[in-house]
Amino acid sequence: MKIQGTSYRSLWPVNAHTVAIIDQTRLPFEFSVKHLHTLEDAARAIVTMEVRGAPLIGATAAYGLALALADDPSDKSLDAATAQLIATRPTAVNLRWAVEAMGRHLKEVAVDDRSAEARRWAAELCDRDVATNRAIGEQGLALIQRIAAAKEPGEPVNILTHCNAGWLATVDWGTATAPIYMAFDAGIPVHVWVDETRPRNQGMALTAFELGQHGVPHTVIVDNTGGHLMQRGQVDLCLVGTDRTTATGDVANKIGTYLKALAAFDNGVPFYVALPSSTIDWSLSDGGAIPIEERDGREVTHLTGRASDGRLTTVQLAPDGTSALNAAFDVTPARLVTGLVTERGVAEASRVGLAGMFPDLVPGE
Amino acid sequence: MKIQGTSYRSLWPVNAHTVAIIDQTRLPFEFSVKHLHTLEDAARAIVTMEVRGAPLIGATAAYGLALALADDPSDKSLDAATAQLIATRPTAVNLRWAVEAMGRHLKEVAVDDRSAEARRWAAELCDRDVATNRAIGEQGLALIQRIAAAKEPGEPVNILTHCNAGWLATVDWGTATAPIYMAFDAGIPVHVWVDETRPRNQGMALTAFELGQHGVPHTVIVDNTGGHLMQRGQVDLCLVGTDRTTATGDVANKIGTYLKALAAFDNGVPFYVALPSSTIDWSLSDGGAIPIEERDGREVTHLTGRASDGRLTTVQLAPDGTSALNAAFDVTPARLVTGLVTERGVAEASRVGLAGMFPDLVPGE
Repeated sequence: MKIQGTSYRSLWPVNAHTVAIIDQTRLPFEFSVKHLHTLEDAARAIVTMEVRGAPLIGATAAYGLALALADDPSDKSLDAATAQLIATRPTAVNLRWAVEAMGRHLKEVAVDDRSAEARRWAAELCDRDVATNRAIGEQGLALIQRIAAAKEPGEPVNILTHCNAGWLATVDWGTATAPIYMAFDAGIPVHVWVDETRPRNQGMALTAFELGQHGVPHTVIVDNTGGHLMQRGQVDLCLVGTDRTTATGDVANKIGTYLKALAAFDNGVPFYVALPSSTIDWSLSDGGAIPIEERDGREVTHLTGRASDGRLTTVQLAPDGTSALNAAFDVTPARLVTGLVTERGVAEASRVGLAGMFPDLVPGE
Repeated sequence: MKIQGTSYRSLWPVNAHTVAIIDQTRLPFEFSVKHLHTLEDAARAIVTMEVRGAPLIGATAAYGLALALADDPSDKSLDAATAQLIATRPTAVNLRWAVEAMGRHLKEVAVDDRSAEARRWAAELCDRDVATNRAIGEQGLALIQRIAAAKEPGEPVNILTHCNAGWLATVDWGTATAPIYMAFDAGIPVHVWVDETRPRNQGMALTAFELGQHGVPHTVIVDNTGGHLMQRGQVDLCLVGTDRTTATGDVANKIGTYLKALAAFDNGVPFYVALPSSTIDWSLSDGGAIPIEERDGREVTHLTGRASDGRLTTVQLAPDGTSALNAAFDVTPARLVTGLVTERGVAEASRVGLAGMFPDLVPGE
């Protein structure tokens, strides 16, 4: 998508030893492209959340493996790199799978060919992500069109989203945002309520930035506000992403998603989750079994923004010595999910719904 | 309650022309006592939220009227001051009533005696608030004792609270915190999950400060986290305050309260609201009719904390030009409220429950 009129992906290869990313910890105030040269650079970019979002984490890890093999294509290097990348973030399931599948494939490739093959594999993974998100967008567009058709001409469709499941969380288009961009591009009046998404404020910093650069009307709100808006009839549709979905349709997503799903259910607002099938964990039938990452409490007690002198400044919010709990995700049970917007269509959030949409992916007994 | 070992109320009279408050916009980093000398000082302290919390707003307004009459005790001055104070914050109902009742009473008093009588009235209102909160504390203590009795010895009772319904929101003790302080003082192991409460972070800044000064174990969380903790069985009780309660038990409180009530209901966690009967609006039977204050969007897009150089610094969080909606309260319907903890006892959140507890307050037909 576009930044100041220029089209970007969220990462791109420069040469065999260099991959470019957008440092998302500097957004929305600085558009800073950063070069990754080593496995360590890639792992650090994931852990420090310079790149984030399940699909983009997977793509960065794939290029991280390619960087490792450009340095040392041995089996030992391959195994160590695979293990290091998988350990960076525990909740996203496609990170593990992307890296494991790539590792298995490369083991079969001659050592001298591994570096080039790893780059080819990573590039293909990125292209597949873009195509998948475009397909999700087309499926979600139909939902928005239906809501728009029931409104007075010109009256906007109000969509609430949480965190950033935008193009910055993927390679391009985004998952939850793909339908929004397509609706906007098709001339359907849309307005997005952007949850700021504490503690890291990916909604305020990234989703608002993305939507603003593309010209999509939006309003930021604190995470506390969505329920009130739904009570007052000011939300037509909730549309969020996910980091891992169980085979039964339970959805792990950024902390706070569950609260919005409860409010949507209580007020009869449709609650849709957009996801590529790569985020379905067919081995799990209970969302309660998804490991939930706990991050540093400092992300809760401190916050970074731009001070009046223009500098990015970190301020402390809590009294000295206050302890904080920082659970990064929560699980929304399938019963609260109206539907799962996938690259093949909108599935019911249930074992039957998902297996019916992806019979080829269901593991054998 | 205590700050660094010294007992304070949240405001106190100094002389006929001076009332002292704690500037709560400087907490938790600076304990700054500020003197109000005029009606304008008092109104500004309420609007800028140097004082906040429904009971403390009422007390400050009462002293604001006393300051106005110390300057000019005429009918005209009395009427103008009453109107100005009522206009400061629209959601809290006891502000209006405290000021109207006081104004009516003072109209009957000889002009020369009005200043002294206003001070006496304000002081009595403060003492009554303290006594009311102590009684709420005793009623709520019984709830906590019952939960503690069902636990293994030494296992803490985990209480989640939202915003600051603490002693800083009242004259002393607090409403939602009074039972917590009493349980802690009685040696019951308690642990408080403190919602940070965006946008103004009264939980992170004030509740954590209060609890820390009193030694009550607590952990701050972002507002997104409470549902996840309830799903995992880590919350035994939710206890919040209210700015206005309808005759049917619907509760207006800080934005986001509704979302926590939904999660409590979904997980079978008891959800109690602590309130003095002065916050019951007997004229309303639908929470949807409570006016909801909308504040400046800058409270959402900017945040103030302490920078590493020790200075209070405001940082911008959103991209330039981003618009924000800042609704300050939401309404939790009575069906989600387990009980209303009042100075007379725990009432069912219903017309029957409230009228049964306060038959003397129900307006005549």
